[in-house]
Amino acid sequence: MNIGFIGLGNMGGPMALNLLKAGHTLEVFDLVPASVQRLTDAGAHALASPADLARSQVELIITMLPAARHVKAVYMGEDGLLAHVAPGVRLIDSSTIDPMTARDVAAAAARQGNPMLDAPVSGGTGGAAAGTLTFMVGGSAADFEQAQPVLAAMGKNIVHCGGAGNGQVAKVANNMLLGISMIGVAEAMNLGVALGMDAKVLAGVINTSSGRCWSSDTYNPFPGVLDNAPAARGYSGGFGTDLMLKDLGLATEAAKQARQPVLLGALAQQLYQSFSAQGHGELDFSAIIQLYTGTSQ
Amino acid sequence: MNIGFIGLGNMGGPMALNLLKAGHTLEVFDLVPASVQRLTDAGAHALASPADLARSQVELIITMLPAARHVKAVYMGEDGLLAHVAPGVRLIDSSTIDPMTARDVAAAAARQGNPMLDAPVSGGTGGAAAGTLTFMVGGSAADFEQAQPVLAAMGKNIVHCGGAGNGQVAKVANNMLLGISMIGVAEAMNLGVALGMDAKVLAGVINTSSGRCWSSDTYNPFPGVLDNAPAARGYSGGFGTDLMLKDLGLATEAAKQARQPVLLGALAQQLYQSFSAQGHGELDFSAIIQLYTGTSQ
Amino acid sequence: MNIGFIGLGNMGGPMALNLLKAGHTLEVFDLVPASVQRLTDAGAHALASPADLARSQVELIITMLPAARHVKAVYMGEDGLLAHVAPGVRLIDSSTIDPMTARDVAAAAARQGNPMLDAPVSGGTGGAAAGTLTFMVGGSAADFEQAQPVLAAMGKNIVHCGGAGNGQVAKVANNMLLGISMIGVAEAMNLGVALGMDAKVLAGVINTSSGRCWSSDTYNPFPGVLDNAPAARGYSGGFGTDLMLKDLGLATEAAKQARQPVLLGALAQQLYQSFSAQGHGELDFSAIIQLYTGTSQ
Amino acid sequence: MNIGFIGLGNMGGPMALNLLKAGHTLEVFDLVPASVQRLTDAGAHALASPADLARSQVELIITMLPAARHVKAVYMGEDGLLAHVAPGVRLIDSSTIDPMTARDVAAAAARQGNPMLDAPVSGGTGGAAAGTLTFMVGGSAADFEQAQPVLAAMGKNIVHCGGAGNGQVAKVANNMLLGISMIGVAEAMNLGVALGMDAKVLAGVINTSSGRCWSSDTYNPFPGVLDNAPAARGYSGGFGTDLMLKDLGLATEAAKQARQPVLLGALAQQLYQSFSAQGHGELDFSAIIQLYTGTSQ
Repeated sequence: MNIGFIGLGNMGGPMALNLLKAGHTLEVFDLVPASVQRLTDAGAHALASPADLARSQVELIITMLPAARHVKAVYMGEDGLLAHVAPGVRLIDSSTIDPMTARDVAAAAARQGNPMLDAPVSGGTGGAAAGTLTFMVGGSAADFEQAQPVLAAMGKNIVHCGGAGNGQVAKVANNMLLGISMIGVAEAMNLGVALGMDAKVLAGVINTSSGRCWSSDTYNPFPGVLDNAPAARGYSGGFGTDLMLKDLGLATEAAKQARQPVLLGALAQQLYQSFSAQGHGELDFSAIIQLYTGTSQ
Repeated sequence: MNIGFIGLGNMGGPMALNLLKAGHTLEVFDLVPASVQRLTDAGAHALASPADLARSQVELIITMLPAARHVKAVYMGEDGLLAHVAPGVRLIDSSTIDPMTARDVAAAAARQGNPMLDAPVSGGTGGAAAGTLTFMVGGSAADFEQAQPVLAAMGKNIVHCGGAGNGQVAKVANNMLLGISMIGVAEAMNLGVALGMDAKVLAGVINTSSGRCWSSDTYNPFPGVLDNAPAARGYSGGFGTDLMLKDLGLATEAAKQARQPVLLGALAQQLYQSFSAQGHGELDFSAIIQLYTGTSQ
Repeated sequence: MNIGFIGLGNMGGPMALNLLKAGHTLEVFDLVPASVQRLTDAGAHALASPADLARSQVELIITMLPAARHVKAVYMGEDGLLAHVAPGVRLIDSSTIDPMTARDVAAAAARQGNPMLDAPVSGGTGGAAAGTLTFMVGGSAADFEQAQPVLAAMGKNIVHCGGAGNGQVAKVANNMLLGISMIGVAEAMNLGVALGMDAKVLAGVINTSSGRCWSSDTYNPFPGVLDNAPAARGYSGGFGTDLMLKDLGLATEAAKQARQPVLLGALAQQLYQSFSAQGHGELDFSAIIQLYTGTSQ
Repeated sequence: MNIGFIGLGNMGGPMALNLLKAGHTLEVFDLVPASVQRLTDAGAHALASPADLARSQVELIITMLPAARHVKAVYMGEDGLLAHVAPGVRLIDSSTIDPMTARDVAAAAARQGNPMLDAPVSGGTGGAAAGTLTFMVGGSAADFEQAQPVLAAMGKNIVHCGGAGNGQVAKVANNMLLGISMIGVAEAMNLGVALGMDAKVLAGVINTSSGRCWSSDTYNPFPGVLDNAPAARGYSGGFGTDLMLKDLGLATEAAKQARQPVLLGALAQQLYQSFSAQGHGELDFSAIIQLYTGTSQ
């Protein structure tokens, strides 16, 4: 299939490479020449603007952008995709943005005959490179069916979450819970160790009890518990604190619009904000445990 | 083995019955005659006081009491167990109390030659009846070894958590995390559903993603997601809000003594307190989701 | 002076009437005919659109609008004020909006030669009618000097807060503190009374001690403490919960953009959100005390 | 009057000296010889134990002790005051402790004919030296009347708060509110300054608006706003973070026993705990603003 791809950064770049590996041809665009270069070196064809890309012979356009304002500009800007794309061309936005914007863009696309899916991912840059991302997909069942083979070239877990915007809803809800759980594990581990328990023994108890969670059994923030978690390598790599902070910002903003209280979610956001303000926004989000131990200060 | 058992309530009663079923003989005491009756009907021998029980020919005494003040009174009171028990008789306290008191009592017991374990449980009244409790055990490895066969008659998961008091530490840390996770799941589920997602689909995404936790995949608080969770039966049965509140009280008090901040833990405590103050302390703790939806108000 | 006034609702209407009383002539616009009628009955001249008003012979235009999106539309929309107003006409926006939008609009106005002030108010509909509002004003010192006589016709406390946007900053910071203090007083009063103190005696102690604050000595939320506070009249009138919620939304959003943690501010926002979600958004914000006592549930 | 005084530390020492200055004779006791020495140098008579002091010819005994366990030991211990004091001798405990313990001790004293008041103070070591403390007094109106002249030698604001324990209730409620307000001011000041306002201008607006409070107008935590607040001298002196932490511990514990939620109070406690855990427990509590700015880290 001839696919357009806009946004070739840390996530979009390796995702696009996986599409090439799967045998698709690519028309690509990014503002950063070096990011484009990596893709053209691998066989993609570069275009000068989203408008040019929209006018090329692509059947599907995928976008992977930093925030809602970029998505709005690329799709709905004066010289954006929707102004130039032919009816029938399918659109997939894999950016993580608020559900409302995702629905606005999808509605605008639908009005002019372009089926659109929101398909944010989890799995980080490692998952993007390995082609093992999880896609949380919002849109019609038929559009989801059609998109699945293409998404399968970039990820291994492709989940249909319901209508337009629901991919974003699933991501924002899951990541808010993740942000809360991680701090919960940090507090529980610190408390238990301060009271005299061995960290590995405590994690073992939790992981076979009702406190069991991904943040404890797969990504434990306490140093020495897991050999392959970010805590074992100085909290480098992984899912950065500032990215978690962005997702919690989306969650609390969505909650505000839905008039839904999220007390722990809002407090978690403030704690990651505190940690980021101390200069640790680049560390993996599990480093939030240092806000309690003061290790890094 | 001839075993003494003090505290024959909702938890202690069925635990003692399981000891009888396993072939042990029992000397029992409780302040409530009906609770004693159930055990004597099943073959146990009743005694008039903890002091009498301590002076009987038991090799081991197990206690299951509501709170630290009862444990202190039963063991260290003027006419308590320690004042009358022969050296060498082993002691197991299965009450859920603060680690400091557990250590104080164990130290007093050790000084007069009575090896003692703290062995709080999880699994609720259902687990107590079925003999499937989890025991979190603090004390020496040798004492733990000796106790294991007896505990195995009442539970299926017997975990050694380290020295005296560490059973309590493990329980308090695990349950604080549980209390946080449950509210996190409640917020995430409510937010997702308010934003337009189907609850079962959302739970499915979370349960295969980084938000995965026991509170979501085994005990989901959102009605309709799991057929066998308390949410499916009006939040009856299960682990009561006021019991969770008690455990969070132990956790925050232990944190205060350890000078360890637990921000989400303290906020979770206040939220269960709010829900209990509205008159819902008897409901399963997963009913905390109603604090957000106002369903019950 | 010939003044334009846009936004004649609960706040803007009485403010505009006070300008008429002070002898100014008014050109007015509002989308709601009844709101316009009240002003034309009092001698104002109605115009059909912001554009018409901008093209009329006014020396100064004042706007009082519900939210940032209305401010953006009225000033920067295709057919908005800035597209039609003559250079030199002065602009004052008294809406409560985020500081960033206030600065964007002021910068756009300045670029085309229209000096602009942001001048949000406090004092509620009572203060608007009585002409006793407080104006928190952002903009140059010279522009502030010129505006003062006009603002003095509508308020009695006119404070210069620094450059463009700082009026909004002052309001958002003050009201976040107010929202926190009110909940703090509610918790302290409830706690003291639950522990056996008389509410009036407790308020008396607080008001002469280090807990002293406006929320306690002037607006105490506990029924029976003050005769003239909203608590004495079923929490009717006053400053609505949903307005406080809006201001806390502005505060936490501004904090997010400034990368500044506001832990109590964010939790306060969630508590007012909880109370509003229970159906009490119309009550005065001091009714938040009912979230604790459950009186209204 | 011949008065007994137990507890001659940073607070009790200067308080006792003021009693001497007022012409009373003193029988004193403290565990620390240097503390006793300061008083005997000034004319007091030292005794070897609380029991000796209770048996001496005092009409009134005042105690000023660090925590509830000391109060219980001194009054109700085997060789404590109540075991040796003659009926009719009046008792005043100025320690800051939980209301329940205060009531237990007062009830025990009343049973044997010793009228007792709880009379915790605010005003710090400065107020103790200057004789300008505030006394919050719980007990009968008649006992309060009798005690007033003696208390007036040590303080200038003597408030009757109702029956036994209510002095402690008033202090705990006021100080919880103070702890919340101070963090609220810290967040509001930091937010406003981060958004571009001058700190003094912002404090000026707040102090004449609805955010007005003692923490802002008398004790502002932002450096440079007030010349005579701890912020102007590196947060030395004043009311230490660890003392605020102790009072918030009393407040949340009392709330737990009263089954009363205190969400902001509990979060405030955790924030002071975080700051103390970073090693700043000796700084004035207004230094909590550094938890946000990271200045001291």
